[in-house]
Formats: sequence, structure tokens, C-alpha cells
Amino acid sequence: MSITTGIVGAAGFAGAEVVRLVGGHPDFEIRVITSDSHAGMPANQVFPNTPGCENICFKSHDDEELFECEAVFLAVPHTAALELVPALLSAGITVFDLSADYRLKDPQVYEEWYGVSHTSPELLEVAAFGLPELFHESLRKASLQQTKGKPTLVACAGCYPTASSLAAFPAVHAGWVEGTVIVDAISGITGAGKSANERTHFCFANENVEAYGLVKHRHRPEIEQILGLPGQIVFTPHLAPLNRGLLATVYLPLKEDSINLDAIHKSYSDFYKKSCFVRVLDKGIMPKTKTVAGSNYANIGLAYQEETQTLIAVAAIDNLCKGAAGQAVQCANIVFGLPEDRGLTQGAFYV
Amino acid sequence: MSITTGIVGAAGFAGAEVVRLVGGHPDFEIRVITSDSHAGMPANQVFPNTPGCENICFKSHDDEELFECEAVFLAVPHTAALELVPALLSAGITVFDLSADYRLKDPQVYEEWYGVSHTSPELLEVAAFGLPELFHESLRKASLQQTKGKPTLVACAGCYPTASSLAAFPAVHAGWVEGTVIVDAISGITGAGKSANERTHFCFANENVEAYGLVKHRHRPEIEQILGLPGQIVFTPHLAPLNRGLLATVYLPLKEDSINLDAIHKSYSDFYKKSCFVRVLDKGIMPKTKTVAGSNYANIGLAYQEETQTLIAVAAIDNLCKGAAGQAVQCANIVFGLPEDRGLTQGAFYV
Amino acid sequence: MSITTGIVGAAGFAGAEVVRLVGGHPDFEIRVITSDSHAGMPANQVFPNTPGCENICFKSHDDEELFECEAVFLAVPHTAALELVPALLSAGITVFDLSADYRLKDPQVYEEWYGVSHTSPELLEVAAFGLPELFHESLRKASLQQTKGKPTLVACAGCYPTASSLAAFPAVHAGWVEGTVIVDAISGITGAGKSANERTHFCFANENVEAYGLVKHRHRPEIEQILGLPGQIVFTPHLAPLNRGLLATVYLPLKEDSINLDAIHKSYSDFYKKSCFVRVLDKGIMPKTKTVAGSNYANIGLAYQEETQTLIAVAAIDNLCKGAAGQAVQCANIVFGLPEDRGLTQGAFYV
Amino acid sequence: MSITTGIVGAAGFAGAEVVRLVGGHPDFEIRVITSDSHAGMPANQVFPNTPGCENICFKSHDDEELFECEAVFLAVPHTAALELVPALLSAGITVFDLSADYRLKDPQVYEEWYGVSHTSPELLEVAAFGLPELFHESLRKASLQQTKGKPTLVACAGCYPTASSLAAFPAVHAGWVEGTVIVDAISGITGAGKSANERTHFCFANENVEAYGLVKHRHRPEIEQILGLPGQIVFTPHLAPLNRGLLATVYLPLKEDSINLDAIHKSYSDFYKKSCFVRVLDKGIMPKTKTVAGSNYANIGLAYQEETQTLIAVAAIDNLCKGAAGQAVQCANIVFGLPEDRGLTQGAFYV
Repeated sequence: MSITTGIVGAAGFAGAEVVRLVGGHPDFEIRVITSDSHAGMPANQVFPNTPGCENICFKSHDDEELFECEAVFLAVPHTAALELVPALLSAGITVFDLSADYRLKDPQVYEEWYGVSHTSPELLEVAAFGLPELFHESLRKASLQQTKGKPTLVACAGCYPTASSLAAFPAVHAGWVEGTVIVDAISGITGAGKSANERTHFCFANENVEAYGLVKHRHRPEIEQILGLPGQIVFTPHLAPLNRGLLATVYLPLKEDSINLDAIHKSYSDFYKKSCFVRVLDKGIMPKTKTVAGSNYANIGLAYQEETQTLIAVAAIDNLCKGAAGQAVQCANIVFGLPEDRGLTQGAFYV
Repeated sequence: MSITTGIVGAAGFAGAEVVRLVGGHPDFEIRVITSDSHAGMPANQVFPNTPGCENICFKSHDDEELFECEAVFLAVPHTAALELVPALLSAGITVFDLSADYRLKDPQVYEEWYGVSHTSPELLEVAAFGLPELFHESLRKASLQQTKGKPTLVACAGCYPTASSLAAFPAVHAGWVEGTVIVDAISGITGAGKSANERTHFCFANENVEAYGLVKHRHRPEIEQILGLPGQIVFTPHLAPLNRGLLATVYLPLKEDSINLDAIHKSYSDFYKKSCFVRVLDKGIMPKTKTVAGSNYANIGLAYQEETQTLIAVAAIDNLCKGAAGQAVQCANIVFGLPEDRGLTQGAFYV
Repeated sequence: MSITTGIVGAAGFAGAEVVRLVGGHPDFEIRVITSDSHAGMPANQVFPNTPGCENICFKSHDDEELFECEAVFLAVPHTAALELVPALLSAGITVFDLSADYRLKDPQVYEEWYGVSHTSPELLEVAAFGLPELFHESLRKASLQQTKGKPTLVACAGCYPTASSLAAFPAVHAGWVEGTVIVDAISGITGAGKSANERTHFCFANENVEAYGLVKHRHRPEIEQILGLPGQIVFTPHLAPLNRGLLATVYLPLKEDSINLDAIHKSYSDFYKKSCFVRVLDKGIMPKTKTVAGSNYANIGLAYQEETQTLIAVAAIDNLCKGAAGQAVQCANIVFGLPEDRGLTQGAFYV
Repeated sequence: MSITTGIVGAAGFAGAEVVRLVGGHPDFEIRVITSDSHAGMPANQVFPNTPGCENICFKSHDDEELFECEAVFLAVPHTAALELVPALLSAGITVFDLSADYRLKDPQVYEEWYGVSHTSPELLEVAAFGLPELFHESLRKASLQQTKGKPTLVACAGCYPTASSLAAFPAVHAGWVEGTVIVDAISGITGAGKSANERTHFCFANENVEAYGLVKHRHRPEIEQILGLPGQIVFTPHLAPLNRGLLATVYLPLKEDSINLDAIHKSYSDFYKKSCFVRVLDKGIMPKTKTVAGSNYANIGLAYQEETQTLIAVAAIDNLCKGAAGQAVQCANIVFGLPEDRGLTQGAFYV
């Protein structure tokens, strides 16, 4: 079995990571990669020595060959997927959308945060949400549909929402949380994208840490939706000088008489017991992004401050892998009935 | 006028920064620098091309010459200052202590957090607290004493307490804050000290972000004391791969009917109007550590999220300068009756 | 087929990379990993999420289980292999030695550069030299011996010798070179090893470049031996602030009437035509370490300056992979009759 | 005395460093800074907390105010100075040109390497060469002219030529060198300039080392001119992931019966005995870029390999300071009759 695959936006950071993972995947095969800026260029000029890239060239985004694939990954900026997704689905192609266009279930919320009307709101309801550990049922249904020969759409979760929700969800799910949840996160510079500007210039990003997008970062409504806590999330992302890695430190106010760290730790461990990729670390151990960089794993550390009844849950992921491409491939594995971790078992480098 | 100065622990990161600042200061002069590990070594072997280091050698910590100085800076680990401070004061020497030994006013809190009894609790009350923007009166009194020829002790604030208190204080002072304050901070690796271990090894620190010291970091009681909010602070420090820089993102829950961003911004601007070193940035601008690295400045950015009534105050400092050595020299300027910014006007490098 | 494998010194940087590669290799299986400093510790505490490390613990270096393996990789400091190698060979175990102990064919040269007498000089002659692209015949013989059930010893080339020899060899082999060859190389900090000291401290290594080991670096006699140019090599290594990566820029003075860049490029391309891992880049393209980091590839760029008749050959490798562990696994593939690139086809990350 | 100063191209990296140095200089005063891209913007928005930038705005490059200055620093790309220099000189303004336009004495060499005709070749002869340690006489003459009220032009040396010539010159000057000199250099990313592109993007520059501009880098003819060795220089620059710092490793083949390391070291020490900024390190010590970053110092280390009669001279500078802005200010000090190190005595940070 070899599922023919197209990757749209393959020269961006997330797209390139999809290329790496699909190119090395035993059950998928790269059929076409597109990039408007690189169209015509041999793939191995950009991805030398990368399996699956030996004999292909970049095509433009509207290339016909896309429509001959069984699965297409969209690694495009928001609004670009609005147009592509309906066309691909109509052609019977299953789509894994890494953009933000089909994540928010309410088209009004989308319009409010992204400033454009949603042109295919009818798809928002049917789209499966691509964060398998928290929305497995949604993906199982998509898989069922796929086995019946009907194409499906998976709206893959964003990087910050993935890390912060994995950290917060079990406590919220247990009904322990009351009040405002603070999500404070730090991302490597790949999170700022491939476009070259003053923010991504080495000499400005290097030896610098900064906060950005306070109050108004677009991943906030996504986190609110996943956790079911509208209006209760404060979210502050930061940039730090590393390539890959995202650490979310989430502060959850717990109800008065609830709980101690042992019980919290047990609950989290149970919640993620069957997960291939989420590891709840031993009490007292906090996650490092280095330990997951280059892998699809998410490591979670827990601490509890009694005086203030605050649970602090910290999650580390690779923003390009579990936070984007790896998660999309994980979703694709589920949808196509493969083992969830197929092609994704590579661990992080030690250094 | 040239105040003879001793620097104890001059080979550590904070001590070396005191050497740089005092060596280039027009009114202080380095008389002796000590380091048990470097005793006997010419200073310019460690600090080549550094003014003030041309013709001196490192001495051991108990060197006699220390007692011939007018001012001594202690850049030593906690507990080491417990012994040195009383001896120096007795000898009539004014001491600027960068360690944590005289910061906490309550000896029981010190014992609880540092695990040792305080051996000179009587000095805790008389020690001035070295965070000039918030405790100017305390330093003015110390200066008065100094002019009368009586030596004084300044317990300089820690790096995290400095940044987070500068960010939080005006709102707390205004009486707007109610509930738990979250302090989430990121430090460069100099904050982990000069000792070589797996945490500070380049290959582990590089390309990594991690949280550490959750719930139990010793700077928490210090922040509680400064802000006057015992039991109300949650504090999580992180390490990021840069040398110098500390960013504190502080989440302050405001009382119900309080305030909007304009009023907050005006209040902060007024509060720091006369400060040489604290800059409240324009609304919408967030601070970067690069913009203050190598300087004694603290830049503060403000955002307000109405739905959750959360004020987010972000402060950036250089952890070795405003967070340690620069602040100590600023205190020394005040105590010795010099302009507060003497020898400290250097800005950050652009890159 | 699954070859049981022991890895000695598995907690060091090169050893950890052997763990990563052997753990993910379809034909090898980790039986035992040793580390005197980590003995007793579960492997997945150090290598979380790393295949092959789930249910084993570090043992001490002299653990009995080592002698039940079919193959042992030694990632130990020089002199430590002097003792281990004869014992392992006697027990019928094939050894891939990443240390320097069996690389130099002349025991006197070893003594001169390493300051100790060689205790098993008789093995120097029979040891295969582990740099497959240049010593394939030597490894083929070792493989033949292996198929006869006789254990073999492979002395794997060092990181600097690997990169610089791959860059220089085709020109030397062609007989074009006359005079002193300058090897100027830059390594990432993993090349300085895992021990924590002032050189490897983040705050000193970061934002720094330096030359070290001038004239007397121990990789010089190894390069001289590989190229067959005793007394003709000048070698200067440098450290730069990155984790993985080694770039060797080699300056080769060519004989008077020899050659132009087209002919040089063709000759190099022919020389490496059959190589799995060495890529001669198009004229005008120079290699980047990022393009090979994390992979076993070596990329070579060529330039020729007519006025001075100097060929400049630049090679980029990952010092821990092609410069150490990857090359050792490549040798093991050859010796055990597997495809040379088995388990080693992973490309570099794009970012 | 306060010399009114204009800085053209003040938003670029070298220009910003001139702003920092002139702004903090006791005898110069910033009158106008220009930047076509930043025209109209308040200076302290770009250079917060930088002395001298409090109350000025960026102007466009052709601003009238430039012509009211006594001294103008040009930090512009090559060819841009061709037009500006004659106009400024005609207006009686002394010019310190950091561009390459007036460095090469032979207009044909300029045309060959820069692809344009020189439009004011008559100025090439009269321009002083801005590398004070090697061309002090030339600057002394310019100073004499200045005291007579005649404006002068100083063509400041490039970053690579500065470091490599400081390393090579004493040996060449002594007549010891014969044959091809190899200059292998490593620069931080500020050397690639402020323009944002794939080369300067953090995620590509970080964790990467590469060679570039082989054989054809435009600093080669400049090095040949300074050393008086036309056609004898091979020059390879590299980029490494740090902001500031340039290390040049120069390989000099010595004549047969010349010399040993003691004599070489003594000769270099004598040569730079009176220099404010060049330090010849003790034998066995090699320079680190960190030790000079942010300062105007150049540190030189020496090694000699007898077998090949090769002198290896290594020089470390800050490419933006001694390699650009600091050197320009040093030249300005000389021309205006000030102590050579006025405003330039700041040492490097320890970390």
C-alpha cells in the first residue's frame, strides 16, 4: 500500500517538515510538491539527500497533478485554504489542512479573528479536528468515512493550541478548573515562519527574547474552543533564539477543595496512558524542548502550588513536528487506518 | 573623588560585571578583587582590555586589603555573605551585597527558604533594599548615614524580583490588584551561573527552552515581600539559549470596576517619570531583551485583556546589569551622593 | 537477522549517537550500553522516546553482557580502547573502535602524539581503517573475515580526518598535489565533548569563535597517514557556536601545468560516483553544515584559483554522525554484509 | 571642543555602530543621521537609551544638514560613496568612508572587482587609508591637512582586510614570507549585513557554518594591496552563527632559513608595541572573538610549524567595531588631533 500524496506549500517550514516525514514514511509516497516561489526547481536542490525528493520538481500551487493524489497536505497561510479545500474534496481527495481556515467551528469567530468571511462554512462542521489525543473520536469517524471511499477534511490544530491544550485538557476535563487560565508560551523562531524580515533576521532574533501578540494572538480562540472555556483564556506567546521547540506553561486555578499533586499526576497519567506520543513526566521533572525536538512527542510536567491552588502544567513539543507536520501525518495515519505512530517513531537527538 | 572599592567573587558572572562597571566608573576605583578559585592570577588575564584591571591580581576572599576599601561589593553565593557582611561593617566599610542573605526581612522566612539560620538578624532591619525605583527612601536614608561617616548595608534585589516587581508594582501600589499574581519569566544562561555542569553545557543549553524551580524557586518570597503580597505569587522561571537578558511576563488580575489600558499606561508612566532607567514603552510595543542587554535599563510593556480583567505587564532587563551589578552600582551612586546614573549610561548594542 | 550489539561509552556524545543509530537500525539490536558515570540508570531517562532504549539500563564498562554481543562499538577516550579491544576480539567479538587507539599504523607515531606506549601494536596492522569511501578494500577484507566467523577490528577515522580527507583525497590520489596542504576546519561544540568546563560552558562558547590545538592537534598525523603526505599537512581546527557540524576547508597547491576546475570537478565526481554518502556539489555551490547535520552525508564543494594554482576543496559533515557514529555504523554494515546505507538514509532537517 | 558629525546609512549595522560610538564620544556630537528607509523616524525608536539619539530623527541621504557638519561618516554600500564623497569634500567636510569605493588605489582594479568605472579616480591617490596600525603616516598627513583647514578623505579598511592584515603584516614587512599566503576567515552574521534574506534568516544561519565567496570575494584585492602581495593571496571567508566577531587565520610560508617562534613573537610584539588596540598574546594562547566583541581591540595569536615552515597568525576583532565603525572613529581621532583611543576604551564583556 502506498498512498499518493501532494504537499502544497512545500517550501515553507511546516511544508518542508511534511516532505521530510512523508518522504520517509513507509505507506505514503510523495507524488507532487508545490510552491509558487520555487515552482520548477528540482526538489533535491532544496532538500538534498532527503528520501522521496530525488526525482521531482516543485510545481505551482494549482498544478493538475494535485488532483491525482489520494491525500493532500496543505501547508499554506490562512485564507489560502479556503479556496483549495472545497476543490480538492470535490475531486475526492482527502485533505489535511495545516492552516487555520477550518479549525474554528463558528464562522463568526473566524471572521472576527481573521478579518475575512468564511466561504465554505458548511465544511466547518464536518471537518475533523486534528489533535488526536483530544479528538480521537472525530478522527475515527473521518477514518470510517475514508474506508467508505468518501474524502474527508482534517483541520489540524495549531502549534500553540496543541501544546497548551495537551497541558491543560485533563484538568479541565476533570472539572477541576475555575476562573481564568493563563497560557504563557515560548516558541523557537521557525514559529515566525520562513519569510525574511527584521524579526527573523539572525542578528535581531539571536540573543533576544520577546513577548508578542499579547491579548490578540489568533491562537487564543482556538485554545478556548478546544478547552471549552470561551472568554477564560489569557494567552501570551514569546520568541526565543532556537530553531525548533515550543514550551507552553499553563496556569490553571483549581476549585477550592479539589486535589493534590499525586492525584493530579495520576489523573494525567491515566488520561494519556494509551497515547503513542504524550508522556507525563515523573513528579519533579519538567520538560525540555530539546528532548522532543525533531520528534512527534509531547512531554508534560506538572507542579501544584497549594497556597494559591494553582496547577502549573508545562508541555514541550517540536512546533514543526507535533505542532504541525507530525501531527498532520499522525492524523493521516488514523484516517487511512494505519498504526497511529507509523513513520513517526524517530526520537529526538540527544544533542 | 575616587572611592576605593573591593569586589568579592569577582570571577563569577555578576562579580565580573561589577568589575566592568566599577572599572569604567569615573568616581570609583578598583582597589582589590577577590576570587578563591583565581587567587594570584593577574586580572587582565581574565578581563583583557578592561579598564581598571591593568595592574592588579585576584586575591583570596579573606584578603586584608578588602578592609582598606571604602566600599565593597559582594558577589557571592547565599550564606557566604552572612559571615562577611558583619565583619566589613564593623570595619567601617559600606557593603553592597548582591547575594540573597540580607534581602528577606523576616529571618524565619530566610530560614524556611534557604535552610540555614540567619546569624545576624539584627542587620535585616537596618539593611537598605537595593531596588532604587521602588525603595528610594530606604536608599536615601542609607545615603544620609553614609554622609555621617557610618557604613551602611544595601541588600541588592535579585534578578527575577527586579524585573517582575518593576512590572507589577505600580498596579499593586495603585490598589488595583486582587487575587493570585502569576509571574512567568525567562532568563539567559548567565542566570544559571558560571559553574560548568550539564545544565550550562553549550550542547544541552543551546536549542533548548525549559522551565525550572517551579513553586519552590527562592525568588518567590522576595517578590512577595517587595509587592506586599504574601501567599499570592506564582512564579515560574525558564531558561532560554542566550547569554544576557531576562524577560518577566506578569499577569495581574484587576478588581472588577477598575480601569482601562489608557489609565494603566498613564499611571505607569507617571510612576516611572523620574526614573533614569525604567522606560514605559508606548501602548502596543512590547520590550525585547536585546534592547536592554549590556545596559542598566528596564523596559516595560503593558497590555490589558478586558474579558478576564487581566493586566499583562512585561519587563525586560539585563539580568547581570540591572538584575545584579548595574543595580548595585546604581545603589552605590545613591549612597555616595552621586548622580544615580553615573557610569551607567551606556545603551544596549543595536546588534 | 538481528545482530546483538554493545555500546561502550554510551552516555558520551558519540556513544549516544551510536545508540540512536543502532536503536533505529533494522538489522542491529541494542543488547547492552555502558557508562561508568551512568551505570544503573534506565536508558530512557537519558534517551527518552528513543527506539531500542525502552527496557534497558546503563551498565558499567566491564559488564559481562558485553561479551555476549556479536558487535561492540567503543566510544571511549583514547587509551581506554587499548585494553578493551584485545579482550573483546579474544572473545570473538567484532569491534568498531571510535577512539584513536588503533588508527595510526605506526606505534611510534602513536606514542609520539598520545604520550603512551601502544600495548597491542600487532593489532595495528590487521585493523581495518574505518573510512569506507577511501579504504573500501580494507573493509571488504574485514567483511570476508567476518563471514568466516573471525572477529575483526575496525579503527574508525576521526571527525576532522574524515572531512578533510574526503575533501583532499581525490586530488592527492590523482597526483596533482605538490607542497604543503593547509587544512582549516571548523567544528561545532559537540566536538569538544560532553565534559562540562569553561570551554563548553554555554556563556563562553556562545557568541565566540576560536582556533585551538594549532600545530599539535592529534588529528594531524591521522590526516597525514590517510593522504600519504607525512610532514606536508598544516592543520588548524576552530570551534564555532553550534551543536553539530564540521566544515573542512582544504587548500591544495597543484603542480604547475595541471588542470582547470572543470577537470577537477569531473575527477571528484567520478571518484565519488558510487558513494552512498558523498556528494560533489555543482560548481559554484559550497556546502553548508546544516544541510548534512543529523545525517551521514558528506557534501563537497570545489573552487580553483588559477593565479596561485590552489585547489580549495570544502567538505561538510555532521561530526557526530559521518564524523563518528554514522561512519562506524556504515563500517558495520559493510563488515556484516549489509547494504552500506542500511539504517543511515535519514536526511538532514531543512531547518 | 565638539565636532559636529553626520552619519550616512545610520540604520545599517556598521552605521548603527558609528552612532553608538560617536554618541558616546566626548569630543564628537551627532548632528544628523540619515537612512533612506528610516527617514522621518525618531532615532530613539531604533536606538532606545542610546546617548546622542534623544532628540533627533533620521533624515534622508541627501539632507542639507549633512553639509553643515564638520565630519561625515559614510556607512553605505559600494558605489553609493562615489557620488557623495566629492560633494562633501567640496563643501569642506572631512569624510570617513566605510564603503569600499576609495580603498583600492588602482581604478582599474576597482573596475575589475566592482564592475563599475570609478568616477573620481583623482581622489584615490589623496585618500588616506584607514588602518592606523599599518598606515599611520598616511593618517598623520591627513591630520596635518585637517589642521590647515583642508578637508580630508579617509578610506577605512574592510573587516576581513583589517583582521588578516594585522595578522600578516609584521611577517611580510620583515621580509620573511615567500609564496602563496592563505587567508581563512570566519565572520559573525552581522558581516552579512542587515538585509533580510535566506542567508540571514535566523533558522538558516543558526546551527550552520559555511564558506562563501571563494576565490572571488572583493576583499582579496584589498588584502593584496595592503600586504603588497598581488596575486599571492588565497582568501576564503566563512559565516558562523554569532552576531559580532571575526577571526582570521593566516598561513604564511616562510623562507627557508628564517626563524623560530620566539623571534617571530618578539618581532610582532615590537611591531605593535605602541598600538592602543592590537595585543600580541603570549605564546601558546590563541585569540577568541568573545574577548574583543564590542571593543575596538584586535588580539593576535602566533604559532609556527617547523616541518612546513609555516607561520600561522590568528587575529580576532569585532567586525563592526575594529572592522568598521571603531576603526573609523579611531581614524577620526587621529585626523582631528585627539588621542587615538578617545571614546574607544570600552573592553569586551566577560560574557
